[in-house]
Amino acid sequence: MTITGIDPLLAAVRGGLTVYDLARPLFVGMPQSPNHPAYWRTLPRRHGDRVRGDGGSAANDMLVMGTHVGTHIDALAHVSHDGLLHGGADAQLACREGGYPDHGVHTIEPMFRRGVLLDIPRLGRPCPGGYEITPADLELAESTQSTPVGPGDVVLIRSGWGRHFDDPDRTRYLGHDTGVPGIGEAGAYWLAERGVHAAGADTIAFERLGPGRGHSSLPAHRVLLVEAGIYLIETMALEELAAVGVHEFTFVLAPLPLHGATGSPVRPLAVVGGA
Amino acid sequence: MTITGIDPLLAAVRGGLTVYDLARPLFVGMPQSPNHPAYWRTLPRRHGDRVRGDGGSAANDMLVMGTHVGTHIDALAHVSHDGLLHGGADAQLACREGGYPDHGVHTIEPMFRRGVLLDIPRLGRPCPGGYEITPADLELAESTQSTPVGPGDVVLIRSGWGRHFDDPDRTRYLGHDTGVPGIGEAGAYWLAERGVHAAGADTIAFERLGPGRGHSSLPAHRVLLVEAGIYLIETMALEELAAVGVHEFTFVLAPLPLHGATGSPVRPLAVVGGA
Amino acid sequence: MTITGIDPLLAAVRGGLTVYDLARPLFVGMPQSPNHPAYWRTLPRRHGDRVRGDGGSAANDMLVMGTHVGTHIDALAHVSHDGLLHGGADAQLACREGGYPDHGVHTIEPMFRRGVLLDIPRLGRPCPGGYEITPADLELAESTQSTPVGPGDVVLIRSGWGRHFDDPDRTRYLGHDTGVPGIGEAGAYWLAERGVHAAGADTIAFERLGPGRGHSSLPAHRVLLVEAGIYLIETMALEELAAVGVHEFTFVLAPLPLHGATGSPVRPLAVVGGA
Amino acid sequence: MTITGIDPLLAAVRGGLTVYDLARPLFVGMPQSPNHPAYWRTLPRRHGDRVRGDGGSAANDMLVMGTHVGTHIDALAHVSHDGLLHGGADAQLACREGGYPDHGVHTIEPMFRRGVLLDIPRLGRPCPGGYEITPADLELAESTQSTPVGPGDVVLIRSGWGRHFDDPDRTRYLGHDTGVPGIGEAGAYWLAERGVHAAGADTIAFERLGPGRGHSSLPAHRVLLVEAGIYLIETMALEELAAVGVHEFTFVLAPLPLHGATGSPVRPLAVVGGA
Repeated sequence: MTITGIDPLLAAVRGGLTVYDLARPLFVGMPQSPNHPAYWRTLPRRHGDRVRGDGGSAANDMLVMGTHVGTHIDALAHVSHDGLLHGGADAQLACREGGYPDHGVHTIEPMFRRGVLLDIPRLGRPCPGGYEITPADLELAESTQSTPVGPGDVVLIRSGWGRHFDDPDRTRYLGHDTGVPGIGEAGAYWLAERGVHAAGADTIAFERLGPGRGHSSLPAHRVLLVEAGIYLIETMALEELAAVGVHEFTFVLAPLPLHGATGSPVRPLAVVGGA
Repeated sequence: MTITGIDPLLAAVRGGLTVYDLARPLFVGMPQSPNHPAYWRTLPRRHGDRVRGDGGSAANDMLVMGTHVGTHIDALAHVSHDGLLHGGADAQLACREGGYPDHGVHTIEPMFRRGVLLDIPRLGRPCPGGYEITPADLELAESTQSTPVGPGDVVLIRSGWGRHFDDPDRTRYLGHDTGVPGIGEAGAYWLAERGVHAAGADTIAFERLGPGRGHSSLPAHRVLLVEAGIYLIETMALEELAAVGVHEFTFVLAPLPLHGATGSPVRPLAVVGGA
Repeated sequence: MTITGIDPLLAAVRGGLTVYDLARPLFVGMPQSPNHPAYWRTLPRRHGDRVRGDGGSAANDMLVMGTHVGTHIDALAHVSHDGLLHGGADAQLACREGGYPDHGVHTIEPMFRRGVLLDIPRLGRPCPGGYEITPADLELAESTQSTPVGPGDVVLIRSGWGRHFDDPDRTRYLGHDTGVPGIGEAGAYWLAERGVHAAGADTIAFERLGPGRGHSSLPAHRVLLVEAGIYLIETMALEELAAVGVHEFTFVLAPLPLHGATGSPVRPLAVVGGA
Repeated sequence: MTITGIDPLLAAVRGGLTVYDLARPLFVGMPQSPNHPAYWRTLPRRHGDRVRGDGGSAANDMLVMGTHVGTHIDALAHVSHDGLLHGGADAQLACREGGYPDHGVHTIEPMFRRGVLLDIPRLGRPCPGGYEITPADLELAESTQSTPVGPGDVVLIRSGWGRHFDDPDRTRYLGHDTGVPGIGEAGAYWLAERGVHAAGADTIAFERLGPGRGHSSLPAHRVLLVEAGIYLIETMALEELAAVGVHEFTFVLAPLPLHGATGSPVRPLAVVGGA
């Protein structure tokens, strides 16, 4: 049995934590890729529909959604290249009875890891649609912030594009015509070389999308998910974290154990102790 | 900026954590209440269905489910009594445009709290179907384990019924004919008096269900969700935690921010530091 | 028992029928209103996923959709005005346990009725976006075609807008910016005075939509569904019928008996005998 | 243009029709196979949720369901044997982008055909669970009723099991433990030899199911769907037709044009003219 007061984690919790929510709210009509089933939530039963004799009543929901909508994590099952998944498994044979038992999102361990926010706009480099964030950008952020990226870290790359999430024009954030900023192949190799555990961004596809190009080519997905086995987290809310200048933190994320799924909606958190 | 090494939380993380997964896996055909839309996950696209010119291919999922299936948390919007939600809001008027903006699951803050497992079978008290776990049982567990329950804690009550989750007879765990063990009204008041923040159990409805009674009366839901404003977590996996004898831990849970929803599937964790 | 050869319907069938399909195909990505859950169809199981010992294998689908997507019929439950449904029922009280038992689509009898196509563009009147088809237009079509509209008929009004259904720009058919042609309040009263049973059109909302106005005002829905109790059929495929010049026919339609629903996807047919 | 009064079909319609509904209502909780996604219908929007300035309000639905639930038709894409679909196509290669473009339910033409009800219990042969309806039974019904079955007909086989559809025990109709009556391999060959276009029954799987055997072997599906290319219609409502003794009629059925789907919910009708 754990003795109260000895557990350093519980002691840290008691010392006070500040929790930053890195998830976007999920609501009908939110910006999302048309490649995935849209988020819908309805109430099959509302209060008053059926009241028990003792005065009790329950309301409940039905959810319909893709696993790559809202803030979500990509499992290794999500992307293949030349017919192979990460580790060399045949992508078609890896699917058994309608799921990916060996590469699904249920295989991702809950994360309690050092997190680093690399805040590119803070460097004075605005990231317009289609801008490719380079290794030089990443390294400048690292050094300016004094937050070197190391093995096992979770790295969150802020382009500032997240400011469009709430735009009344729901297509603005998707950026089909404008493109979307993000890292490209070079940035992906940089992350892979650092040995990060997972990487996230404030955009819908994590990596740079060229204007008018859509998802026709996703080299960073290939490098990270297929070659390096690094998980991707998309559509993150990074504005608050950037506004308060928190660049290093404990990153906490626990995907839903959707057996065999290619991804999961998640609620990632950045947590700071000693508050 | 947070300086590396100063943050006691990050220091605890670096010191090593043991993470116990308290969520059941989500899979088609899993035991769940027929009152809620069943869990379904399918792959609209599999690898090989559409391969881009560069050799890349993506697979993705569609999810359909209720928010009270699998391991999940009940928001205050879930239950009303005599037409009122917790805090006295009119339950029908609280629904706006198909959701509960003030009482929905999106209003539940992520939890990093002291967690206590009250392991009833360990006391030599097996909990058969329909058994009501009493305040005396709860207090005996508290004292035997040296884990007093206090304000703000998250209390998990293990009846041992979770062993039926994997029964090939998917109705066994639901226990319609046998009843299901759990606390009743008295146990609910005991938790409310202790001022706990949330309470969970290894059963489908958290509280005791009488044999053949189904969900016809749910007094603990009324006391906890409506009267006391205490969240409930159902269908938890508590067997591993019990097997290793961990009774006190940091409880971590972050519901999906499903705007206006009455509940959310979750992946709760029990975490122990200094491992 | 019916004696073969005596039944005039069966005799007509044996004499040969020409069947015109008035339904649009249902496919993922088809044009539809964002007000309704999008059509999705996936295969939870494909051939080869699970092969029985005897060599047999089954594939199956999951559907997710609104009931007002694709070619569909509006039940009287769909629209209310000043809180009342057709016949004066209170629209909120008419909903019981999440459905409309008295006004739902299950109350619509299958139709075998005289159908009339009023082909407006054939009159030399192209119908651009936002064009209001007037009673004068309807009467000119009636007389030119020698197809007077009478009580109990089903009237299909072709604006020609259906040609945009297959436009690669999926928003073209919706016509948000351009508006969509159709009848307005005056045309609706004209149909109601003729005593038609149901009315359909080749557009997404049956009636005229003003440029940039969306569904902010739907007077023909009010007149027909609420005041007159006339069913509406939307997103019909009328191009083939117009091309071959068939203006009078047997109209056949059988909604799915979705208990309590506000509408149903349908496959309406125009059938001509003696072919 | 068709001249009014000449069309024999329209003349038959005007002469009066009696329409028998052969579809079961679709409602949440109805009996259905657990192999398929369950039917759910909810109202994302109810009257009063959002009222426009002019007093108008719309309610709408979300549907979730398999295509083999409720009264439905099986397309040729549904079943394969030894890796082949009807006509010899490779069942795995026949699936393209998540659907069956060549064998899907959208390829089934709307049916206006002679229909024959073969009413087995009327012969004094009750059909208990697991009873196999033999070719001799079918021929006795044919001759007793004076309704010979011929090429292109649609044959509906009534076992009487449909009386269990409304049983409060929703598993009764499924008949897992009791078995379900129906034709077997011999009956299937009999239908194939007669050259029927489609065949239906009042049970969930069309063919006989042995007690406790479930769907482990479905020889009639193989013979009809794979070998003979004959469509199957399941979970039909045949009680009313039998009660009034109508054994020959015009059978009308139009599947939803669900592109690439393995089946479709349908509302089949038996229609008699000259009423």
